[in-house]
Parts: sequence; structure tokens; C-alpha cells
Amino acid sequence: MTLTSAPAAAALTSARRLDEQDELARFRRQFVIEDTDLIYLDGNSLGRLPKRTAQHMRQAVEREWGGRLIRGWNEGWFTAPQRVGAKIARLIGAEADEVIAADSTSVNLFKLIVAALRARPGRHKIVTDGLNFPSDLYVAQGALQLAGPHHRLEVVASADGLTPPGDLAEAMDGDTALVMLTHTAFKSGWVYDMAGITAAAHRQGALMLWDLSHSAGAMPLALDECGVDLAAGCTYKYLNGGPGAPAFLFVRRDLQDTLLNPIWGWFGQTAQFDMLPDYQPGPGMLRWMVGTPNVLSLAAVEPALDLALEAGVDRVRAKSVRQTEYLIELWRAWLEPLGVGLNSPREASRRGSHVSLGHPEAWRIVQALIEEMRVIPDFRSPDNIRLSIAPLYTSFADIHEAMARLRQVIVERRYENYPSERFEVT
Amino acid sequence: MTLTSAPAAAALTSARRLDEQDELARFRRQFVIEDTDLIYLDGNSLGRLPKRTAQHMRQAVEREWGGRLIRGWNEGWFTAPQRVGAKIARLIGAEADEVIAADSTSVNLFKLIVAALRARPGRHKIVTDGLNFPSDLYVAQGALQLAGPHHRLEVVASADGLTPPGDLAEAMDGDTALVMLTHTAFKSGWVYDMAGITAAAHRQGALMLWDLSHSAGAMPLALDECGVDLAAGCTYKYLNGGPGAPAFLFVRRDLQDTLLNPIWGWFGQTAQFDMLPDYQPGPGMLRWMVGTPNVLSLAAVEPALDLALEAGVDRVRAKSVRQTEYLIELWRAWLEPLGVGLNSPREASRRGSHVSLGHPEAWRIVQALIEEMRVIPDFRSPDNIRLSIAPLYTSFADIHEAMARLRQVIVERRYENYPSERFEVT
Repeated sequence: MTLTSAPAAAALTSARRLDEQDELARFRRQFVIEDTDLIYLDGNSLGRLPKRTAQHMRQAVEREWGGRLIRGWNEGWFTAPQRVGAKIARLIGAEADEVIAADSTSVNLFKLIVAALRARPGRHKIVTDGLNFPSDLYVAQGALQLAGPHHRLEVVASADGLTPPGDLAEAMDGDTALVMLTHTAFKSGWVYDMAGITAAAHRQGALMLWDLSHSAGAMPLALDECGVDLAAGCTYKYLNGGPGAPAFLFVRRDLQDTLLNPIWGWFGQTAQFDMLPDYQPGPGMLRWMVGTPNVLSLAAVEPALDLALEAGVDRVRAKSVRQTEYLIELWRAWLEPLGVGLNSPREASRRGSHVSLGHPEAWRIVQALIEEMRVIPDFRSPDNIRLSIAPLYTSFADIHEAMARLRQVIVERRYENYPSERFEVT
Repeated sequence: MTLTSAPAAAALTSARRLDEQDELARFRRQFVIEDTDLIYLDGNSLGRLPKRTAQHMRQAVEREWGGRLIRGWNEGWFTAPQRVGAKIARLIGAEADEVIAADSTSVNLFKLIVAALRARPGRHKIVTDGLNFPSDLYVAQGALQLAGPHHRLEVVASADGLTPPGDLAEAMDGDTALVMLTHTAFKSGWVYDMAGITAAAHRQGALMLWDLSHSAGAMPLALDECGVDLAAGCTYKYLNGGPGAPAFLFVRRDLQDTLLNPIWGWFGQTAQFDMLPDYQPGPGMLRWMVGTPNVLSLAAVEPALDLALEAGVDRVRAKSVRQTEYLIELWRAWLEPLGVGLNSPREASRRGSHVSLGHPEAWRIVQALIEEMRVIPDFRSPDNIRLSIAPLYTSFADIHEAMARLRQVIVERRYENYPSERFEVT
């Protein structure tokens, strides 16, 4: 399929030049990309499969499980949550013994939120804002309901749904047990000031919890340097860990022995195989584990982390900024004149690794892109065409071609063939 | 290696004859068994890899994730927890819409225990017994700690550590919110009277929760017929779902709309993609889900369930009983005279699919079996040599040979070469 229009073709030369100059270009060849005409800009929902992961999974299933059977536990499985956690730690500015990989993001948020509320007795409030994942709000609502009738969630509204509320710090007070935010907003891609907000929470004696799902692997983070207390995030977006991969969980070292995971399981117990009748929470991050680790899913995560560490998260971020800038340049030249808005920050330092373009027909445009233009972005209500850049495998040519096809959909009003009612995923 | 001694060789003929008459014998060829001299009797810790799972995992990783990317969610991933749950339901005597596969056994127990305590306000007690998994007790202790200072766990002691306490029903009273037990005891293999104990709990107005980890896939169960309220269990033992595979969770249909999962996540929400700000628990079993389902691990579970369904759980149980009887016959002939005890019930109807043999040097004997005799059983304190029979792949010849090698270890006192201190798994 060649959809590139004549004027767009001129700009293609510059995209190709940028790819030639890209020091991370070789990493694209490390991923399974069979359908080369398909432009995948949804790596912030599900990252691509690294070739080495495919190989490693055959090994994990066929040689380790099939061949070693129960002996696998002593040959690397037991330590997988810590080993994977230590690699994630290097990507997020934490120490190796501050991170484990286990359970889902939501379950990990539940553990951390309940623990935080119990660590701040007499305080009743969790502060968050309207840019947070609804899912994170649900977990907080459930945890608050367990905590008692006077506990409550304060969701500070965003004026435009794209940028954080200016008065977030004003909502933090002496009754605030916890401030929880998502570091990169899933709609606009807004990146918060981690150090500043964490400090504001601390000034009120509250704990600070960051959801790093849209940040980990896309940009350098400095959890320890920022004094962050708690964090969690998923590994299936920019960390390329596979669909529904285990999540991670961070607890600042000097809080590890005072906070208590509310879900007491045998993998979080001090002396697991003594099978003592009473739970004794393990030291360090061990206590944040619950049940038997999901070995096969952890095996899928690990090779992708090695790839990210090889590339270096600083270089990934530098390329991500160049690529979102490039995308925004094309938007300005081709799409702004057609009435498409920019829902992501223009300032690179405040922007994550995706760009959301706004259009009243965003939902139908996304359908047209997927169904007939061989571009996969995603839609986020009310009007976001969300275009994700995963610098390990997204090329400048991908961005160029996707923007050209998007332009064509809008110019030719191809989206009019699609229903405007959103259908539920079945 | 030929370790079969002369007298044992005579009995081998009868083992081979039993294998020839075994209607399930062909299922053994459905599993990856490369090391044919190794006798694996630890299928109740980690089941073997079905050949079709190896194939299916390549498909799930390479074709579905690698090739379909985010589109996989609409092509089977979303419904995997329900689809896998419905297959497990057929194995445990439940309806398709009463079971989902998600999270770990411990996380599922936590959800169910907290929900049960909240469904019985004013009642403060959970009743269990000393044969339950320590891990299950930990989860209950954690849940009770959240519930309040007057809540407590009553662990009715077993007189011998092998059989359940006779006065279990006496511990159930008007203050009992929940009775929780493991259906097949992990040390002795004792199988409880599910109908009788469930009825006793109900007579006191308590809810009944069964851990089916050592039962599911090994014997027919009749959760609905027995009026069971709640159940959970793992899929990596007799269900052959792989190391740390997702667990399952059962809630009786008429309780589904009244009980509430305390961990509120987006996959348990009514209209997940509407991303409404307030959590609204989904209908039926949907509300028991939390985060994004672990697609790759669910993919590993499914083919093994098909295998179990093909074999038929009644036939699996019939073979299991024949095999544990056969093992006990060999014990009586060869090992009882050497001072080895039988720690499992003699009555087949009260015995699960493993047999625990008792010996003061059990720990060293198990080490010798693994290190030099190419037999993998496992040890459970204080004196259990636990021999698991997985009828889908365990042959009578396996049992014969394992018992011959065990006899040799004891007769030749080979265990004396091994340390008596238990080392921690690293």
C-alpha cells in the first residue's frame, strides 16, 4: 500500500535522514516486525515483542518447565521477582532492593494504598487529580471503603482535562495521608514535576505514590533522588513485557520495614518453607509479595528489560523528544490547518512519549486509520487520537507515514464511513 | 540406570500389565517427557508440560502478541479469564458463570475472605483447622487484621497432624462468619467431606470457603451440589498450568451480586472502557477481576484444561485410586517391614491423589532419591515423603520403579550421606 501523497513524499526524505542519524535505529531490528506496512503507534498500550523474548519463552516453557520441572524453582524461578525488579529499578532511578515484580498494577496499588493509610492513622484523605487513570481511582475508592466511613478521596479537577490542576498542593493538608498521581497522564501525555509534588506532599506529612505505567521505559526517572515513597507500574507498555505482564512495585528503602502489605501470603513470609503457623512479614521488598510468582510471565518481561538497559533510558528519552517534536512539526504543517488540535504539551520537558491530537471525530478517524489505512493508534475520550512513540522500534519514517495517512483520512473524510457510536470491546 | 532389584523385578510384570489395561495410558504421550529414566512424583507441586501447551505458547507469544499486537485483546484475550474459568468449572462441578481465572490463589483468597467478613457483619470469627495450608492461614490473619480488633482466627488442632479434628463443627457458632478449609490436605492427602462440612457451616449461618488446590483436576468435585459458597485454587498442580500459573475463584451464583471484591480494579468494573470516575462492580464473576489479565499465563493454562476434560475427571479419579492403592500395596510388602509408616488415609474415599509415607529420616531420604536415584518426590515436615500421582502421566511402572528405588535407599541406608539440617531454598 502506498498512501503517501505527493507533498508528503517530499518530507519523507527528511524522515529517512533522521532515521539514518538515529543512534538507536538498530534496536528496531531486535523486535518482531513481520507486517512492515502496518504502522504501530500503540506501544503505550502494548509494546511489541522483542525477538529475544520469543526465544527466551521457548526456553522457559520447553526447557525449564518441560525439562527441569519442579527443580526450576531452585534454578532461577524463586528469585525472578527480585531479579526482574532490580532491572526495573535501574530504569526508574531506584536501588535494586527497592523494587519487585509481582501481581498486577491494580493489586500493587491496593497493597500500597492500604499500607499508606495504615501508616498515617488519624488522617482520612487521599488526594489525586482528574488526570489519573480511572482504574487508580477505583483502587483508592475500594481501599478507602475498607478504611472507614470518614476516609475519602479528593479528586482535584483539571480545568481542561489535559493539564494538571494548578491548585493541587492546596488540596494537601494535615488530614492527607497519601497523594497519588500518574506521572505521565494517559490522555494528554502531561509529565508531572515529580520532585516538586513529592516535596509538597511531604510538607504536609503525607506519603507520595506515583503510578509510572506511562513513564517507565520511556524516560529516565529519579525516584530516590525525588524522595518518592511509593510507586507502581505496569511492564506491558514501554517496557515491552507482553500482554498482561506482571507489574512492579517500589517502596523507598527506609519505609520498607514500617509499612505492611495487607495481603499476607507465603511468598511474603520471612521463612517461607518453615511453614510456621503465624505470618511474619519478610524483610525488605519480600513482604510485598503474596502468592507464587508467575514464572512464565516474568520470563517474558526480563529480556525486554535487558534491551531497554542496553539502549539506555537517557538515549531513549532523547530520541522520544526528537520524535514527538517531529510529529508536532508535521501536525503544525499538515493537520493544524485542517482543524486538528494538539492535546499534548508543546513543551518537551512536560510531554511524555505519546502525542494526542484532538478532533471532534477522533473516534471515527481512529477506526478509519485501523480499518483501511494500516495505522494503529488509539482513541481516548472525548476527542484524543493518541499516537505513541516507542523509540526502541518507532522510526521517523513510521511517524511520517502515519501522519500522511491521518491527513488523508481527514482530507478525504474517510472517517464518515464509520459509526460514531462507540462499540464496546467484546 | 537400572536400579530395579531382583524381587522387585517380579512385581514389575504386574505394573506393566496394569499399564496395558489403563484406559488413560495414551494421555502420557501428550506430555513432554524427555528424560524417561527420571520418575516424577511431584505433580502436586508442579504438573508436567503438555505438548500442546508448548505449541500453544509459541502461537500465543509469536503469532498473537508478536503479530496481532493490541488487536489480540479483541481476538480472545479479553475473554480468557471467563473462558478458562468455564473450563475449570466443568472440572469442579460448577456452572460456567461461577468461575474465573485470575491473580494468585492467595490474592483470590484475600478477596473472598474480606468479602465474606463484610457479608456477615457482627460476626468475628473464621474457623479453620491445623491441616490447612499455612499460606491460607496467613491470608486470613491479614484479612482479620483489617477487619478489626475483635476479629479472630480459630485454628482447630488436628490430633495427629494427618486427619482433621473430630470437633471441627463444634467450633462453628453464631459468631462464625466463615469456615475455610483445604479440601485435600497437603501433607496427608486427607479428603474432607465437602457436603457435610459445608452443611455444618450453613447451619450456623456461616459462609464456606474451600481451597481446591490439591483437588482440582485430581478428582470430581461437586461445588454446586454441595452448596459451597466460595472456593479458590491453583492451576499449576494437577491442572498442569505451568509454574505460578493464574489461580481460579468460584462464587456461588446467588451470592455473586451481594458479595463485593475489596480490590476494585478496571477489569472488575461494569463498563470498563467508559472509564467512569466511580467504580461500579460488574455483574456476576466480572467483579472478582482486578487488573489486566495475564494473557500469556492464561494461554499456558488453557490447553492443559482441554486435556483434563478429554480424559474426564471421573476416569482420572478412578485411575488415581487404583494407583494409590497399588502404591500402598507395594508399601505394605516392601516398606512397612522396614519401619516406614503410611501417613495418608487407607480408605480410598478419604485419600487424594498423593500418598505420604512417614519415616524419621524423610528429609534425607528425599534428598537421596533426588540426588542419586532419579526420583522426584517431595518432603513435607516433619516426616513425610510425599509421592504424588498425576494419572494423566504417571504410569504404574513409574510407581513400581519409584518404590523399588525408595526401598533401596532405605535398605542400603543411602540417606546417611545427606545432611539432616534442612537448607533453605535459595
